[in-house]
Amino acid sequence: DARMGAVYDSEDWNFSSRARVQFTLSGTTDSGLEFGAKFRTSDIRNAEDPRNGNRGTVFLSGAFGKITMGDIASASEELFGDLADVGYLGDDQGTAGITFAGLGTNAIPYLTLDNETTSGLMYTYSAGAFSVAAAMTDGHGYGSLAAGTFEADTQSYSVAAAYTFGNYTVGLGHEILDRDGAGLDMSQTELAGMAKFGNTDVKGYYAIGGDENPVDDAIGLSVASAFGATTVKGYVQKVDFVAAGVDSVTWYGLGADYDLGGGAILAAGIQDDDVDGSDPVANMGVKFKF
Amino acid sequence: DARMGAVYDSEDWNFSSRARVQFTLSGTTDSGLEFGAKFRTSDIRNAEDPRNGNRGTVFLSGAFGKITMGDIASASEELFGDLADVGYLGDDQGTAGITFAGLGTNAIPYLTLDNETTSGLMYTYSAGAFSVAAAMTDGHGYGSLAAGTFEADTQSYSVAAAYTFGNYTVGLGHEILDRDGAGLDMSQTELAGMAKFGNTDVKGYYAIGGDENPVDDAIGLSVASAFGATTVKGYVQKVDFVAAGVDSVTWYGLGADYDLGGGAILAAGIQDDDVDGSDPVANMGVKFKF
Amino acid sequence: DARMGAVYDSEDWNFSSRARVQFTLSGTTDSGLEFGAKFRTSDIRNAEDPRNGNRGTVFLSGAFGKITMGDIASASEELFGDLADVGYLGDDQGTAGITFAGLGTNAIPYLTLDNETTSGLMYTYSAGAFSVAAAMTDGHGYGSLAAGTFEADTQSYSVAAAYTFGNYTVGLGHEILDRDGAGLDMSQTELAGMAKFGNTDVKGYYAIGGDENPVDDAIGLSVASAFGATTVKGYVQKVDFVAAGVDSVTWYGLGADYDLGGGAILAAGIQDDDVDGSDPVANMGVKFKF
Repeated sequence: DARMGAVYDSEDWNFSSRARVQFTLSGTTDSGLEFGAKFRTSDIRNAEDPRNGNRGTVFLSGAFGKITMGDIASASEELFGDLADVGYLGDDQGTAGITFAGLGTNAIPYLTLDNETTSGLMYTYSAGAFSVAAAMTDGHGYGSLAAGTFEADTQSYSVAAAYTFGNYTVGLGHEILDRDGAGLDMSQTELAGMAKFGNTDVKGYYAIGGDENPVDDAIGLSVASAFGATTVKGYVQKVDFVAAGVDSVTWYGLGADYDLGGGAILAAGIQDDDVDGSDPVANMGVKFKF
Repeated sequence: DARMGAVYDSEDWNFSSRARVQFTLSGTTDSGLEFGAKFRTSDIRNAEDPRNGNRGTVFLSGAFGKITMGDIASASEELFGDLADVGYLGDDQGTAGITFAGLGTNAIPYLTLDNETTSGLMYTYSAGAFSVAAAMTDGHGYGSLAAGTFEADTQSYSVAAAYTFGNYTVGLGHEILDRDGAGLDMSQTELAGMAKFGNTDVKGYYAIGGDENPVDDAIGLSVASAFGATTVKGYVQKVDFVAAGVDSVTWYGLGADYDLGGGAILAAGIQDDDVDGSDPVANMGVKFKF
Repeated sequence: DARMGAVYDSEDWNFSSRARVQFTLSGTTDSGLEFGAKFRTSDIRNAEDPRNGNRGTVFLSGAFGKITMGDIASASEELFGDLADVGYLGDDQGTAGITFAGLGTNAIPYLTLDNETTSGLMYTYSAGAFSVAAAMTDGHGYGSLAAGTFEADTQSYSVAAAYTFGNYTVGLGHEILDRDGAGLDMSQTELAGMAKFGNTDVKGYYAIGGDENPVDDAIGLSVASAFGATTVKGYVQKVDFVAAGVDSVTWYGLGADYDLGGGAILAAGIQDDDVDGSDPVANMGVKFKF
């Protein structure tokens, strides 16, 4: 895929473009198990690389479910995803005032694995309307973007389940970050709901932090409505922190996509937060799929 | 593409080989706009990467012309290109005595964008015999190889036009490098001419530096003549500097290509300059296209 | 290709996965010479890159034989290869107790080029039952993994020959590492034999170090026997060092592959050495070819 456009970082407009190629490899064993691997040229970056298992994924699937290794998501993110994104940069642009890692975009603030990892393991299984997922890392590597960078002794676990009835899906997830040292163990529980009303998609979640998680609770909602080739999208999220004297923060985004056909989408979006002195950011450009 | 051969750096012969794959992505919108992206595996290098827009390019084109973003050239280089290259390494080998960045090869010393940039923007348009181009960067990133490396506050602009009549093309270009700080603003104007006489291609240019450009003027000429499968090529360039006590420098290259067919070309070249104590460099090898 | 599994490093079990894509480029000249290039996405790593000739290879071949440039092997390794590998990680996992570079896996301890190089040159030629190979580097770049990292003045040479009669192959190779400085010149001679008895492959070698090579001699043997979809494999190697007070070291590996069909292989292996206090290492996983 590729994209090109202009970005306003609350001070200047700048150009921003990107080009990537995705490799999708797949095969089938004699007994009918499916296997494959997936990564992008943009995943090739020295130590963080598909050859080291912390970019891209490898999978094996069959009647037993699907096992995925590599740069996996948390079980909750795997089943619920993120809120509707706005603009042509998606969650690559965040609001100007929020410095807490992982907040400030349409991405839901999952506790674990919401970034590259050193070969985690995910198991997913679907039976009719039910889907379950479980993910873990092995104690080497990244556990959490939000709660800190590389940790040699981080172990992360997550489980999640989702139930779909007609146009509605509800889900529940739980994540644990288990680390050496005082005040480092954290947990988080997420409740998520998705619904489709005609041409409108709605997604909402509520998350409660546990143990030493600096997040007390978080809540968010997004709506995306299609009118012909145009899709109008918006999200709003709010996080309350545990620590006294740390203000809660609210941020939102509003945008529109216009489908040019053939894989090209014109997209514009604006995002802002309620941090004092923080101005809106915006971007406008074209996204291409080939 | 790929290449393999031996290189003489004026002291030793060494081996040198390379392999790359080019990705060329393209699509068409419902209204007939064409879009695409282009980059090579050799463009994938951590921070300088197609995913960051400072390697490879993304484009959108239609009746209005063509907009290209990413690692663009200056408007002048886009329309006039460089002089004929010699040897299997092209402008990857320069003469031994020239230390001024961007000089010493078949490359014309354009002022701006003659190297990677952090997402510049280029506009090109052709109508009959006329072609025009305009390029700019946004104040973040690289502006000029010749005039210095990364500059946070560099803004570069360039415009160029070319007119083709029969086998002749003439062109005029102007480049501006706008930076914070004393003595850093530079400009340059280029006049270029290309002609085809039977199997012989001739290209020449004259460039005049302005503002604080250390280059007073530059002149160059190249000739490439095909005799069956063999093409004999040569170029000569001379740059005069503004500063008193800095000698002007002249350099040249002479080479021959032999087309083996099927995408393989045997190429040899020698290059030298008139810097005191500087000896010739040379290379000989095979270039492959797949 | 790709792989996923779990690795025991003698203390912990960890996950390990990998995904790569191989690019294989080829062409033919009008006169029938074949040329091509080969590298993997995993070879793309900044300075060590196919674009710099120290990852991947480029070749040109014809009736005269085959010339290969880039990340070549030594002549001996080109003709004899390594012992049978065990587990899904191959020689990417070594035993826990051996710190001498290049030892501790199924890889035969060749003296030169047993790792990346800065554009070496290899010549190979086969006539009937005879095969010969010669390899050299040009004095810039890596000469030897076992004997030290990058050396600006390293020149490595190697020649090898192999003769095949029926199911038997015997070979002889000689390698030279020529460097500036006292005690740095080394050499090594290898005698290798390969045989196929029904479904069983046997490979053995004996190597004698010369000049300042720290290795006095080395010996190794591997056996791989196929029983239907299962292949049982094992190797053992022993190295004696020249230096007084440095113990000889013996290490071995034992493993089994189970072919799942379609390019998927289930593989498990255990490796150990006789170094005091060193425990076994192991890995188990799936290897995929696409």
